[in-house]
Order: sequence, then C-alpha cells, then structure tokens
Amino acid sequence: MTQTDDILFALTKLHQLPDCGLEEGDIAALLEEMRKFTEGLIEPGCGEADRIGARFEAGVVTCPPAYKDAYAAWVEGGWQGLAAGEEHGGQGLPFALWTAMSELLATADMAFSLCPLLTCGTIEVLEKYGTPGQSAKWLPELTSGRWNGTMCLTEPQAGSDLSTVRTRAEPLGDGRYALHGQKIYITYGANDIAANTLHFVLARLPDAPPGSRGISLFATPSILPDGTPNALRCGGIEHKLGIHASPTCTMLFEGAVAELIHEPHRGLQAMFALMNNARLQVGVQGVAIGARAGKLAEAYAADRIQGGRPIARHPDVARMLAEIRAMTLAGRFLSYEAVIAADHARRGDAEAEAKLALLTPIVKSWCTDRGVEAASLGIQVHGGMGFVEGSGAAQVLRDARITPIYEGTNGIQALDLVTRKLPRDQGALLRRMLAEARAADARLAPAVDALEHATSWILAAAPEEVAASATAYLEACGWVLGGALLARAARLEPRYAPIAAFYLARLLPRAEAHAAEVTGAAELLALIPA
Amino acid sequence: MTQTDDILFALTKLHQLPDCGLEEGDIAALLEEMRKFTEGLIEPGCGEADRIGARFEAGVVTCPPAYKDAYAAWVEGGWQGLAAGEEHGGQGLPFALWTAMSELLATADMAFSLCPLLTCGTIEVLEKYGTPGQSAKWLPELTSGRWNGTMCLTEPQAGSDLSTVRTRAEPLGDGRYALHGQKIYITYGANDIAANTLHFVLARLPDAPPGSRGISLFATPSILPDGTPNALRCGGIEHKLGIHASPTCTMLFEGAVAELIHEPHRGLQAMFALMNNARLQVGVQGVAIGARAGKLAEAYAADRIQGGRPIARHPDVARMLAEIRAMTLAGRFLSYEAVIAADHARRGDAEAEAKLALLTPIVKSWCTDRGVEAASLGIQVHGGMGFVEGSGAAQVLRDARITPIYEGTNGIQALDLVTRKLPRDQGALLRRMLAEARAADARLAPAVDALEHATSWILAAAPEEVAASATAYLEACGWVLGGALLARAARLEPRYAPIAAFYLARLLPRAEAHAAEVTGAAELLALIPA
Repeated sequence: MTQTDDILFALTKLHQLPDCGLEEGDIAALLEEMRKFTEGLIEPGCGEADRIGARFEAGVVTCPPAYKDAYAAWVEGGWQGLAAGEEHGGQGLPFALWTAMSELLATADMAFSLCPLLTCGTIEVLEKYGTPGQSAKWLPELTSGRWNGTMCLTEPQAGSDLSTVRTRAEPLGDGRYALHGQKIYITYGANDIAANTLHFVLARLPDAPPGSRGISLFATPSILPDGTPNALRCGGIEHKLGIHASPTCTMLFEGAVAELIHEPHRGLQAMFALMNNARLQVGVQGVAIGARAGKLAEAYAADRIQGGRPIARHPDVARMLAEIRAMTLAGRFLSYEAVIAADHARRGDAEAEAKLALLTPIVKSWCTDRGVEAASLGIQVHGGMGFVEGSGAAQVLRDARITPIYEGTNGIQALDLVTRKLPRDQGALLRRMLAEARAADARLAPAVDALEHATSWILAAAPEEVAASATAYLEACGWVLGGALLARAARLEPRYAPIAAFYLARLLPRAEAHAAEVTGAAELLALIPA
Repeated sequence: MTQTDDILFALTKLHQLPDCGLEEGDIAALLEEMRKFTEGLIEPGCGEADRIGARFEAGVVTCPPAYKDAYAAWVEGGWQGLAAGEEHGGQGLPFALWTAMSELLATADMAFSLCPLLTCGTIEVLEKYGTPGQSAKWLPELTSGRWNGTMCLTEPQAGSDLSTVRTRAEPLGDGRYALHGQKIYITYGANDIAANTLHFVLARLPDAPPGSRGISLFATPSILPDGTPNALRCGGIEHKLGIHASPTCTMLFEGAVAELIHEPHRGLQAMFALMNNARLQVGVQGVAIGARAGKLAEAYAADRIQGGRPIARHPDVARMLAEIRAMTLAGRFLSYEAVIAADHARRGDAEAEAKLALLTPIVKSWCTDRGVEAASLGIQVHGGMGFVEGSGAAQVLRDARITPIYEGTNGIQALDLVTRKLPRDQGALLRRMLAEARAADARLAPAVDALEHATSWILAAAPEEVAASATAYLEACGWVLGGALLARAARLEPRYAPIAAFYLARLLPRAEAHAAEVTGAAELLALIPA
C-alpha cells in the first residue's frame, strides 16, 4: 500500500471528514495530484538542497538554487490556499486535506516544507484575529504563497518560557508601532524564494504588565507597501544538524513598522492559534519522516543481498521495516484523527474541539519521537551505508531531530497534556477513548488497564509528581491510542490486519512500560537537589 | 560522582579485577593520570577536529592538524601498550584497565579514539596467532603506538555476510603473498599520524573452498621494511554522518606483499579474536557517548534558567538527565563485568570465559543503543541549542550513530546471542545470573520472571522465530542485567541507591515490554513474503 492509499483510508474510512463537497473519488484524485507534485518536483532536489544548504553572505540569505523553481511551482499550483478561506483566494477545503499535502511535502523534502507550513499558521492567525483591513491586505498574499509568513517568538533568554520576551513595540501615534529587539530561530525569516515575508512577532507595549500577560502580537513585512525595506534584517543563520536548506535566522528588529494583531497584551492567545496549528503539522512531520525513512529502507532492503536473499527477508531487518511501518501508520491515523477533529471543531462541534485539544500535544510529541526512532531504524537497515551521507538515510535522522524540539519541546507538550488538557474534564474524554479502544480489540486490554490506572494516578498526584511523569504518561497515551486506531483499521480493512497484529503483539507492551513508569515520580523527584 | 569514581568502583568494588600487583590506590592514581591526559590533551580539540574532518586530496589522507600532536602525546605516554604483553614492550596490565582508558579517550573524542582501539585489537590477534617472528617484528611497533593497526574485512558485496569475501592472496613462493582486492570502511586505513599502518586483511588463497571456511587472514604494512611503499593505497574516504575526523577509507590492494596469520582458511577464527575485543570496546564507546552526552547536558541544564530556576530542576529535564546517567552507569557496570571476565578468562577461568562469551553481544548492542538514546536525550536537554552545531550535543549523536552498526550490526549481535551463546549451555549461565539478580533486589522480580519466560521461549523456538525475536530478547537481557548491577552497587555503596531506585522504578519496565515482544515472533514472520 502506498502512502496516499493510507491517507485516503484515514480521511474517508477510518475518520469522517466534514462535508466539503468532495466525494471519495475526488479526494483520491486530489491526493494523486499532490503525490505527482511532491514526488515529481520537490523530492528529486532534496539531497542536493541539503548538501548546498542555505547561505548567509553580506547580510543576504540564499536558499539552494532549486528551491526558487520549486517554490514558484508551489505558488503556481495554488497549493498554499487549499484550506484557506475562499473570500481571500483560498479553496476553503478541510484542514485535513491541507495536512495530506503537508505530509507529502515533508516526505519529499522536510526543509522545503517548513516555509509553507509556517505560512499556513500565519493564515490561521489572520483569519481568526486580523481586522478586515489586515485580512484584505495580507491574506491574498499569504494564501497565494507569494509571501511567506514567520512566527517570531524565541529570544536568547526566552525559549520554552515566553514570559521573559523583551522585544519592545513603540507606538508611532498613527495606530502603527515600531519594533525593537532580537528574535532567534526564525524559520525562513529571510529567504530568496518568496516575494516578501510577513513576520508575526511577540513584543511588549510600553504599558505592558510583566510576565506572559504583557505580551502582544504584531505583524510586520520585510518590504513595506511602497517597496522600501522595513527596518528589520537577518543577522545570521544557524549552522544546524539538519534541515540545512531551511534558513534558521536571527532577526533584528530595528524600528520595523508593524501593526497590532488582536488586542493589546493578548498576543500569546493569538499566537496559540498559530502554535496549535503548527504543533499538529509538526506531528505530521514525524509521520512524514517515518514515511521517508521507510521508503528508503524498504528500497535498500529489497535490493541488498546478504546470505543469498534480500535483507528485507532476514527476520531482524523485516522487524525494523515493520516497526517503521507500524509506528508511521499509527502516527498517521492519530494525526488525521486530530486534524479532522480540528475541521469539525471549526464548524462548532464542541466534542471535536475537546478531542483536538487533548490530541494536539500527543500528536506533536508521540509522532515526532516515533519519527526520530523510525529515522534511526532506517539508518540501521542500511548498515554501513546508512552512516554514509549520500544514501539519504542519515539526512532523514538529521532533519528529524529538530521535530521533538521546535513548536514547543516534547516535554512542554507533555506538561500541556497532564496539567491542562487532561484535568479539563477530569480525564473523562480520554477515558471514553480508552473504553472505545478496549472495545475495538481484546489485545488492547492490558495496555488500556495500565493506562487507566496511570490516568487516575496523574489526576490525583501533586504538581511536581505530575510534571515528573508527564512524558511517560504521554508516551503511554500515544502507544495505546495509536494501537487502537490500527486495530480499528484492521477491522475495517483486512489488509491492515497483519501490521496491526504486529503492533499489538510487539510494540504495544511499551505502553505498559511507560504506564508503570508514571507511578515512579518519587524516584525521580528524589534526584532533584532542593 | 565523577566518571573515574564510577570506573574505580566498578573495577575494585563491584567486580574483582584479577591480581595485577596494583592496589586500589594505584588504580585510582592511574585513572587520574588517564583523566588528565584525555581531558587535558584530547578533549579540547574534539569540536574543531569534527569541523575540519579528515581530508583526501591527491591520494593522500590528512587528519585534522591537532591530531598529530595528540597522537604523538599518546605514543609518548606509552598508553597503547597498557594491556599488551611485557615481552614486546607492553605493561601487562589487565584489559579492564585498558578499557578504562578506552572509555575516557572515547568520551574525550570518539573519532580520535578509534585509531588506538583498532590497534589494540590487532595486538590481540598477533599475541594470539602471530608466529614468534611476526610478533617480534610487529608487536613492538603496535604496542608503542608508533604504527597503527587496521582490520580489513568488509567489501562492497560482503558486509554482515563475510562468506562472500573476494580479495585474493597469491603465493609469492617465498612464504609471502600478494593481496589483490578492495576493502571498504577501513578506519584509519590511511592517515598522517602514525609512522606506518599494519593491515589485517581477510582474503582467499587460490585453493580456498568457497564460503566462510575458505577465508584466510593476512598482515600487510603500508610501508615495507626497506622504506618503500607497499602495493596498496587509499582510493578515497567516506563522507559520513559523524566521526568526521576519523578517516574511513576504501583500501585498494594491488599486489601488496603480505604474510599469512594463523593457518590457511582459518582467518575468520583469528579475526574473531580481534572482533570480540573490538565488540567489547565498541560497547564501551556506547558508555563513553553516554558520559559525554551527560556531561554536556548537565553543564547546560545547570546554567540555563527558565521559569526562574535552572532547567536541571525542572522535573522533565531532570528525568532526561537521570535517564542518561542511569543508562550510562548500568552500561558501564555491565561492560566492566565483561572485560574483567575477559581478564579472568585469559588466566584460564572457564566460567569467566563463558560469561565473556555471553555478555559480549549484550554489551556491544545494548550499550551502543543506550549511547544513541543518551545522545538524543542530550540534544533534547539543550532545546534549540542542541540542534545547532557548536553546542557539541549534535556531534555526540552524529558520532554515536555508527556504534550500533560497525563491528557487527546490533542485529548480528542479537543473533549471536540467541543462536550461539545462549544455547551453548541451554541458558544455564544466564539463568544463574538471573537468580543472582532476583536475590539482589525484590524490585527486579517482575522483570526477571518475564525474562526467564522469554528465555525458555527462545530455547524452544524454531530458527526463524528465534531470529525474529533476537533483538527483543537481547534488549530485555540488557535492561535486566544492567538493573541488577545497579541494585548490587546500591547495596555496596549507598550513594548509588537513588539512581538505582530511579532505574528500577522507571526504566526496568522496558525489560518486560521487550520480553513480551519476544513471544510475538509469529506476528513478525507473517509480514515476510514467502
């Protein structure tokens, strides 16, 4: 089965897309167009783009040469606006269909895919919080992809803790502001592939209270409407482990003229729209990484003969290929459950909204951790060739390793799950999902029992204990929910039965290990000096 | 506690070194010398060596400039001969003390440490299989470190399956041979830091039977005794994910004059002496990687303030630091158990010989997999900084990723465990070790139960089933044996009690998960096309 077959199954059989005027056949045709675009125009340049990398010389950022044509084709194809509102040039399709494109694009070239990914998030912010004037001015540019969007959050002293943001916004008296400060890790903050870049920047107004309740959101373009450069520039790019072709910029705001988005001091709230969108998409990157790792490893293992047979038939290599496939498929089914919930939530479905909130940190963390694991297994399948650059397998791991870090580290996601999402309804929604899992397949019972026990433990534990066991709890949730979806898929389509059986027998026991780990908070806390 | 404290404890309290004329105080002093040497002379150059990398230009391999002085200091210090026989210039100390140096050296700079590591293996081969003439001629050069040694096994078509080796050895009529063929992945096969290089090469004699019983071992120097170059050369070096400063060479043998080592057609047997030695040392590299990852992560987490306190005190970061420390310590205790068994085995202790054989694949695989895991956690502790080259954390992962691959992939190790080592005595020795584990600490009981069940399953299973579950079985063994050693350490020294408690509560459940995975062979085999 191909990647698009699995996506089609997730979109149309396993989960229920909201009505969008497309039949299953239309969706299959759309997925085929996406496959042709990404495999034909993006994937072939991935390795060379990694070798060349983004460059910074004399203040100017240059992407690998092939990215110019690739990005022009992206804009030409109208892909960026797939899920954007029709009033500003979008196609108004479900976010889940955008996600399918996002997955295929990241499978083809993760470094390239980051530019559209962030633009998508900024479209979401503007649609939700922009004034009609801002939307009319900026949405057509972003929706078409002519401009790219960035999120400027992190500062050297403000990483996971955004309350210490120092960038200042000075009122200019005409309703506009001048931004002063430095932001780091700004993906495609400067580039030579989009016509202009619209930055979404967290900063403080002069009257801002300290802490996270004093942060506002601003939008500021690199090039002003009159064609002159705004007072902002790239101060340098990072030399990174992976995603070499994606420029990770230090952005210096030196009086850049900006507009306020949403209300003063409520910037974090608005930015969360962007971050939640991006978190889901980063989770999907984990799936895409698994898909790419699996594709390369399967091709190598089919061709490489040792001991008289292709290594794909050696049981331990078959194990690694099956682990990659099973984790990737479970991650895909889980991700599409979340993004389809997002589509229903957008149409006012409160249960879907709650499910989206609960699943977002799980999708972000569990799928990216599995992506890194799949990438590492993919190298192992290649043996010595996997460690040599050029087979492509090493690049997958190098690219993958950022996904558990950016858009909120996986540790932050786990805290979000156990301190906000789970207690919101005292675990009621999760327990309903676990009851469904138990009903789906008897083989899930021991893991569901263990996770129910861990859930009760988390809900009754003291805050430091909860924090100590957050990651273990999230891991257990991911393995169980992923397994439940595979079991359900196997019931709906017999072709999924073998891989589901593999997962339930061989991978699901990890859920129990992590559930057991949850109750060992005291043994961790004893190690932290007072 | 420092790394050398832990090593001293392993050497003198947890395990029993054979008598070597050194008291505990002498060993402590020796470890302190090693620490000073590696931290003072090797570690400072590690990052720059990685950035510069080994170069290949006009047929010549160049190591990073700082390696020349570092290697000269290595030779000057007489470290290479620490465990080599005294008759050819060695110090005749236990292999376990060499291992301590090997661990500290790899912690300081893994790429540098590979040159001495392989030389150590070639010394072992010559001591065991060299004629008196060969030993007299070559051992003083290798023992001093003036020459380095290589192992030339792999060919493009012969990776994990050495039976297809094609390199030919043509008799010259005077007892010598001319080698013809190509070997790949030859670590320090060509370099500018040692005065000469002695290659140990697997090749076929003209009358060799096909398959692995027709392979002989030869030794051939890069420079002949008269100072002229031998007919062998480096055809290029690999561009790799990590260990950039270690040249990984394609070696072309174009009639190189060589001597036969050991008997004709029994080259694999002789090479196994080198490989078993190297496998243990690669396992120790896994420990060294954990030590380096932990050192960098602890330093960063102590300094980095978020939310008003160093991140080291945030429970989820403390968890990652504790996981690195607990896995590394368990791996260290397990590795030194194996190398001390090697020392006793060398003195004729049959039980120690059996333990060494059983533990070698576990040490090689489990410790290197834990090393990769620790390196990845180390990056995560650094957040965004971990993904940026320059913090050093990314280099640790890049370097680490080769260790589960070389010296026999971890999958091959697992097969060695379940098809040779374990059945040798029908699991009797392992069962004795599990009984000791059970006696050491009641908290081990569930994991020991699960592993005993898995052991019975493996011993009764069909060959394909055994192969399908080999890796899961090895993983379970590693987690249990490592946990048992931590529990024993905690009983001997109360300072180890907190980290042991952490491991037993939070990591040991993984042993049960892998033990459960063992019995799921059918679910994997169903996925392999006939």
